[in-house]
Order: sequence, then structure tokens, then C-alpha cells
Amino acid sequence: MPSGEDDLIARYFKPLATDPGARGLVDDAAVLAASGSDLVLTTDAIVEGVHYLPTDPPAAIARKALRVNLSDLAAKGATPAGFLLTLALRNADESFLAPFAEALGTDSLAYGCPLLGGDTVSTPGPMMISVTAFGRVPPGTMVRRDALQPGDRIVVSGTIGDAALGLDLLQGRAVATSEADRAFLIGRYREPQPRSALAEAVRAHARAAMDVSDGLAGDLAKMCAASGVTAVLDATAVPMSLAAHRMINSSAAALQRILSGGDDYELLCGVAADQLDSFLAAAQRSSVPVAVIGTAASGTAAPQWLDANGCEVSLTALSYSHF
Amino acid sequence: MPSGEDDLIARYFKPLATDPGARGLVDDAAVLAASGSDLVLTTDAIVEGVHYLPTDPPAAIARKALRVNLSDLAAKGATPAGFLLTLALRNADESFLAPFAEALGTDSLAYGCPLLGGDTVSTPGPMMISVTAFGRVPPGTMVRRDALQPGDRIVVSGTIGDAALGLDLLQGRAVATSEADRAFLIGRYREPQPRSALAEAVRAHARAAMDVSDGLAGDLAKMCAASGVTAVLDATAVPMSLAAHRMINSSAAALQRILSGGDDYELLCGVAADQLDSFLAAAQRSSVPVAVIGTAASGTAAPQWLDANGCEVSLTALSYSHF
Repeated sequence: MPSGEDDLIARYFKPLATDPGARGLVDDAAVLAASGSDLVLTTDAIVEGVHYLPTDPPAAIARKALRVNLSDLAAKGATPAGFLLTLALRNADESFLAPFAEALGTDSLAYGCPLLGGDTVSTPGPMMISVTAFGRVPPGTMVRRDALQPGDRIVVSGTIGDAALGLDLLQGRAVATSEADRAFLIGRYREPQPRSALAEAVRAHARAAMDVSDGLAGDLAKMCAASGVTAVLDATAVPMSLAAHRMINSSAAALQRILSGGDDYELLCGVAADQLDSFLAAAQRSSVPVAVIGTAASGTAAPQWLDANGCEVSLTALSYSHF
Repeated sequence: MPSGEDDLIARYFKPLATDPGARGLVDDAAVLAASGSDLVLTTDAIVEGVHYLPTDPPAAIARKALRVNLSDLAAKGATPAGFLLTLALRNADESFLAPFAEALGTDSLAYGCPLLGGDTVSTPGPMMISVTAFGRVPPGTMVRRDALQPGDRIVVSGTIGDAALGLDLLQGRAVATSEADRAFLIGRYREPQPRSALAEAVRAHARAAMDVSDGLAGDLAKMCAASGVTAVLDATAVPMSLAAHRMINSSAAALQRILSGGDDYELLCGVAADQLDSFLAAAQRSSVPVAVIGTAASGTAAPQWLDANGCEVSLTALSYSHF
């Protein structure tokens, strides 16, 4: 006597629940076996019309829902162990669920993060997808956000600002210089690339880390505030893609968009000076590009962003806030 | 430079994050320290207008959100270890958030289940509260849903049907015989009482268990199907509150509502015959009333519910389904 909800789970999500701890999704709970590791827990939800556009492809939405959580695990130096999925749906629409589940399954294999369980509920409102992801680290080694110290070098992975520009393109607020640039930037908005390959280097060599999701400037300010330090940043050292370079001019407004746009899902790390070479070498081995953009300093003032002339860049909004 | 979202978290939820693993809610992730226990994971979301009424008091909504998850942990024989909270809000309304957070804090202390972290997002639609709860059991001892065997006695805790009648009263589909009965039944709908006190007895003596959330008849059918067995039940043995007794007459429609109404958050257990006395004694020590309502049997037919004359009760809908 399976209900519609049970049918939906059996059809679309049971094939993804390959871990024995998922118990084939027939139980009320999943189990993660005892191990010598600390368990790192993170949860991020995405809401239709807020975190993704109703017109985004279902496969891209699935990837975003899982990957924003994998990005948090990577920032903590953790190895993925599995995830729980909560879906709030208006209806059980096969044309959405089939590609959504397929993409989620492909990603869960690629990142070694199996589906362990979840909940499916109906909602009369916008769709919402909430993922709770689990990772493991050796006891006591989770990399914290609040451990940055004066003198630590500030390092960021990948390129910054692409996703914000991609959203601008999708929403008609900007025009790309070519179709290829447009596709690249929109792809960066729709499909985060969690830096899981960098997790081991972060755990081994970074003193503090977080992922950049709400905007580099704001997230850096949060890391500094949590750690009780400030920082001096070289805005010209912030790594940008060629597509982003081509789109922006040198106006303050464009730089503001790059530094505070959000949805980057890159890693922001504080690395002690004597660990920097080891970190850079480990990053190179993992094939993730990283760039040193500044240095932490004593004090509790807001971090300073300096331009090519050493003048402070004035940022009017540092990051995205929901309220 | 705290954003509105960070302000909200610091103001309302940081006081609840007393566990060192919560890291004061300043990090992107929480940590559960390595231990010799298996970790039991469960997640349940509640949506405004679907799982609770917009007019329900904020404190009751908080308690329901956490307790439906504590109920799952109890059914698995697990001791609570903590929870993650995801809130999707239309706005940061203090008149909602203050009593909501206060009630959540009181419950988290009462049940020994501290807030470890979470996510707060905005939504243009109905409010949604998603909780992921963690519990611990000795390795390999999580009590499964799919382990029921022929001959096992079927036991249920507390009383069944109160919450369904409470919802009927709230929605004007029924009238109570007294104000006291009305208040009792509505309370049973609004504020589940997770049977955490019974968890140890379940782990020690039950072969299979699940919580009753979608309706006793449907949940029992799920347990039988998952276990590859059937069962014969005595409908007259299903424990009912005096308030429920006073409300219903003996019509099949009323019995149907009791057996399939849902929101009971009682525990349904399969107990091997030679463990029954020990289970009943342990339940008595925990002060949770339990009742034996039937016996599992070989076969894959739907479970049979028999009335006082030994005639099969015909149930047209076994449980609530979202789709």
C-alpha cells in the first residue's frame, strides 16, 4: 500500500541510496557507523526564486543543492560521508524529478557522498530543497572560521565574481561580450564547483577557512570579525576569469559586484606564513588554482581593500543578506 | 558588519547553541566528536498550512518541529545528541521568532538535544521549518523498521487518534463534548509528546520499531511490507484517550479516523514473544503506557483489523500522503 510519497521516493531516490546506512530509504532514520573520525555537519537550503531561478534546469538545481553543501565540507577540510535530502514540492512532477534525481545521483557518485535519507513534503509555495551533508575529519582537525591570526596570508581559490555576473546576465542587467562568455558565466552561477579536491590541503595547512557564498568582501569580514582580527587586501590580486575581465570595466560599481556578488563557492583560507609554500604546493598537486590576496593584521577595524594605487576601495554593500 | 540574517541568528539562536560542537554558530559547520556510538540521522520538515496551521502559536510550532524528529530518534532506540535547524521565513518577525526560539531552547534542554547549527533563508511562500536530528546508539543496535517477524507481538504506546480529532476540531469538522476535551485533543495535535523515555526499552527489547506519524493503520502496513510479513490486529485493543472515546461513536467512519488520522507520534513496536514481559516491565518503569494490539504473521497480505465480533474492519484510506 505505498502512498504517492513512498512511490516517489522508491522510484527516484532509492537508486541513489547505495550506502548500507541509508537502509534502502525504508526506515525513519539512517545510520552512520561509529568511526574514529569527528563528524562535520552542514546544512544549506535553496529556495526557488531566491537561490535559483524557476527556469533553471532541474539537473542544475540538483547539483547546486548538493554542491553548496559539499563546498562547506571542503572549507572545513572534511571528506564527504553522505547527505540527507528534504524536498518541499508543489506536486510530484516527473519532468522535474527524473532529471533532478539523475543529476543528484551522478554528483553523489562523483563526490563520494551517497544519499542517506530525507523527507519529502508538499508545499503550496515555492519549491525548496534542503540538504544536510556529513563529512569526516580526524578528531579535532575541523578547520575553523574563527582562527585567523595577524600575519596569516589570505588565500582564495578559483575565480571570484563569475556567478554574480552570470546572474546579472540571466536577469538582463548586463550583456556579455560573447555567447561563450555568457554561457561560461551563467554556468558558474547555476553550477557551483565545490573545491573538494582542496579539502586535504586546507586541513593540512590552513589555519582558518570558510567558503565564499555571500560575497568575498562580506565573507572575509565575517572571518575577520569571528577571529578578532582585521586584514589588508589587494583588490587587484583577486583572481578573475577572462570572461569576467572582459565584462567589467574599471568602475567602482563593477569591482563592487565582483567582490560582493556572492555564489562563488570558492574557498577562502587564512594560512600561516610558514605554511604558505606547503599550501600552495598542495593546491597545485590538487589542480585547484589559488591566489594570495592579502594579509591578516591586528585590530578590529573593517578589512581594507586597496586598489592598484594603494587607495582604499569603498564598498557600499559587502554581501548578500536574506533579511 | 553583521547582516540581518547574522543578527537574527545571534539574537535568537546563539543562546540555544550551548554545545561546544555548535561553535557558537559562527562557523559554516558543526562538529560531532568521534565516539564509540553509531550516529542515527533523521530529518523531518513542517510546512505552514500543511503540517501546522498559520494560527498555531509560535511556541507550539517550535515544539512540533523538534519533537517530530525526537519521536523518530526514540523509535530507533537512540539517545538525542543534537539538531540542525533550517528556517525558511518570509520576514524576520520578532513576534514570531522570540517565542519560537524560547520554546525551542526549553525543549532542547528538556530532551538533551542542543542546537548545533542550521541555515536561515528567505522565502516568498509559506514558512517551512526543517530539523535534522542526531542520536547515538551502541554500534549495530539501531532498531529497524523492517525486522518484524511472524509471531512478534505488536505494541503501541500512548493513545491513538487524539491528534486527528484535534485537527478536526480546529478545522470545524467536529465538535467536542466539553471545553476540556477540546483543549486536550487540540493539544495532542499541536504538541507531539515524543516517547524519548521509551527509547531504551525499545533498544533493549523491541525487534522492530517506527513512530506513528502518518496514521497507525498505514504505518503498520508499511512496517509489515518492509519486513515481508502480515499481521492480525484487534481494533478494540487500540488505546484511546477518554476524550477520544467521548467524541467518537461506534461508526466505521470514526474508527477509520482514529486508525488512519496520523500525527500521533507514538511508538509502534514489534516485540518477540519471549521479550514481551521484559518490554512491558521496562515501559512501566519509564512511565509510558503501552498496549498490545496484535500479532505479526507469515504472509504478504495487508494487515487485518478485527472488530469486537472478530469481523474484519474495512479501512478505505490507511494514512496521509503528501502526493
